[in-house]
Amino acid sequence: MADSIITLTTDFGEGSSYVAAMKGVILAINPAARIVDLSHQIPPQDLRYTAFFIASAIPYFPFGAIHVVVVDPGVGTERAILYVEVNGHRLLVPDNGCWTTLIYEAAPRVIRLTEPRYWREPVSATFHGRDVFAPVAGHLSLALDPAKLGAVANDWVRLSLPAPRREASSVYGEVLFVDRFGNLITNIPAEQLPPPAQPFRVQIGAVEATRRVQSYGQAEPGALVALVSSAGLLEIAVNQGNAADRLGIGVGTPVHVRSSE
Amino acid sequence: MADSIITLTTDFGEGSSYVAAMKGVILAINPAARIVDLSHQIPPQDLRYTAFFIASAIPYFPFGAIHVVVVDPGVGTERAILYVEVNGHRLLVPDNGCWTTLIYEAAPRVIRLTEPRYWREPVSATFHGRDVFAPVAGHLSLALDPAKLGAVANDWVRLSLPAPRREASSVYGEVLFVDRFGNLITNIPAEQLPPPAQPFRVQIGAVEATRRVQSYGQAEPGALVALVSSAGLLEIAVNQGNAADRLGIGVGTPVHVRSSE
Amino acid sequence: MADSIITLTTDFGEGSSYVAAMKGVILAINPAARIVDLSHQIPPQDLRYTAFFIASAIPYFPFGAIHVVVVDPGVGTERAILYVEVNGHRLLVPDNGCWTTLIYEAAPRVIRLTEPRYWREPVSATFHGRDVFAPVAGHLSLALDPAKLGAVANDWVRLSLPAPRREASSVYGEVLFVDRFGNLITNIPAEQLPPPAQPFRVQIGAVEATRRVQSYGQAEPGALVALVSSAGLLEIAVNQGNAADRLGIGVGTPVHVRSSE
Repeated sequence: MADSIITLTTDFGEGSSYVAAMKGVILAINPAARIVDLSHQIPPQDLRYTAFFIASAIPYFPFGAIHVVVVDPGVGTERAILYVEVNGHRLLVPDNGCWTTLIYEAAPRVIRLTEPRYWREPVSATFHGRDVFAPVAGHLSLALDPAKLGAVANDWVRLSLPAPRREASSVYGEVLFVDRFGNLITNIPAEQLPPPAQPFRVQIGAVEATRRVQSYGQAEPGALVALVSSAGLLEIAVNQGNAADRLGIGVGTPVHVRSSE
Repeated sequence: MADSIITLTTDFGEGSSYVAAMKGVILAINPAARIVDLSHQIPPQDLRYTAFFIASAIPYFPFGAIHVVVVDPGVGTERAILYVEVNGHRLLVPDNGCWTTLIYEAAPRVIRLTEPRYWREPVSATFHGRDVFAPVAGHLSLALDPAKLGAVANDWVRLSLPAPRREASSVYGEVLFVDRFGNLITNIPAEQLPPPAQPFRVQIGAVEATRRVQSYGQAEPGALVALVSSAGLLEIAVNQGNAADRLGIGVGTPVHVRSSE
Repeated sequence: MADSIITLTTDFGEGSSYVAAMKGVILAINPAARIVDLSHQIPPQDLRYTAFFIASAIPYFPFGAIHVVVVDPGVGTERAILYVEVNGHRLLVPDNGCWTTLIYEAAPRVIRLTEPRYWREPVSATFHGRDVFAPVAGHLSLALDPAKLGAVANDWVRLSLPAPRREASSVYGEVLFVDRFGNLITNIPAEQLPPPAQPFRVQIGAVEATRRVQSYGQAEPGALVALVSSAGLLEIAVNQGNAADRLGIGVGTPVHVRSSE
């Protein structure tokens, strides 16, 4: 049953006719496919955001679902389109590295799409979402053997993401993502923070947060707090308020954590 | 068949990775679940808007569908999460009163969720949507007996909404909601208006509307009119225009209706 | 299987309770219906945009799917609601011409909805989406014979769209649509352009584009280019940039194409 699930993640924007056309192409091939919108609000051509989004969403899905990701600044160039199996999850992605944050121990299985028999005819130069990704996803959801899509690839683009840096009792990182509530999610994993019992300070832009909580509601409304986000990363938030607006801070702002004395 | 429908209403924003993660968790438990997005555009943490939205949408659904509502300013505090059956509809809601506008004559059946065996492990302190609501919805869609979720609750938070007030031949209310067309929907039900044949005036902010129609199209383009909305409430609108923009009026603006002489 | 697919295209806005209510009404009639959101972001009451959207999306869908389009400035007037079969596609539309760009050689089959037994009772004067379109779509997805909806109509509103005009070696058109990337899609079809080998100039507003490519990626980042869009229309774009922002140009801007000497 999971095999008939096809998720869509794009930067086409909500209500885009491009997304609608992709859904039509999928359903024309497999009318029983069950399409699940993940996001069409990826900032245009933003591969770092895409990588963060994929890592926050796809691991929760059942194995077998097909995840179509069309954030593709290289459309119409020689960049490849890949079928990937990684930790049991199946993706169709441009070869731009957006999925490589999903790679852990096990080596992924990667196939480079070269078989036009599973594409729309003719393939436009600007809309591979409709002409390659969507029809291939439709065929996969009908149990097409992925080996038929092309040859195994042993090399692919990797995305280099800003990694947090440790130095003495400090960790340096940055803001990775701002959610709709204005919470600032950083790239510093909980494991790199001092133990919960030990006090610490977080400098973020010109401001310092010293209060550590487990959830927003442990602080009074309006308090600036540090906590571990639902994705296991250091997060700076204002209870019932908007930290991004209040601090005037966005993606990329440096973050410095140190033990408190 | 309705039992496999799970609707989602959140304030996470369109294209949020939080919504995507919830969909993944649901489908991992029940790959045959059919997820229906109602809204992810609830204004952040706005319980009054949530109550209005729920009352405008959920009554139309078939019995059996599971309605998951995650607008939850109290996440991580001691607030409970409730399974509710009210007028045949089934909801999973934070215990913040957002659903209590659905209560009519019959007493609802309310269960307080206490059984962690139906939750994700570990439950994060900030994202119960993914860790409690989504997995419980998945299990319910597989015909889990709700009695297994926890004990019956006889008390719950009720939301107090601004009620219209009658005084002699006047009714005083306020703007409850502005739709995308700029139509101003008030909290005054049609039953409290003078009979259609009798003229009346509506004062809204500094403006007065005296023309009553049954539909926008009965007036010339640009005319300011009063009518009964599709939800049975007094509505102020501009035919083919935007009343909210033109009058500079929003949610909470006082409205005063009186018979015309 | 395609018969259980119901697509929704409206101008109600993302997350609107109006859309949620329509989904509820459909599923209450046919709990097995599979609802596919196409767009709820049609600019309010914009029939030209609707026509463009429909022509860009619906042809890709499998025959049998039911396409519900509610962009309806005339709601509550005497305008009819139509069931249409055109080139194998089935639509429910207000009689305002928004679908007539789908008519090619074959004459469409058009039925004017007059049978209230398939509507909600009572029909509100302002929300036919919920009270007429949604229930009729639900019944059609249960294999209702369309002939029962009303009598055949031989006349209907046609939308007149701005057509490109040829004059000597020039073609005059205009910008039809701006996508999320700021690409400017015009109403000039590829067939009316000079052959690819022959140089040409495109004047758009105060700017001139002279470079013709097949895909964005053939130019360096930031270059202004002309190409054939995925819908087969002349498109002006900036590789990895936003042409609409850079040129300060929007829908309706005149476009003039001429051979280059």
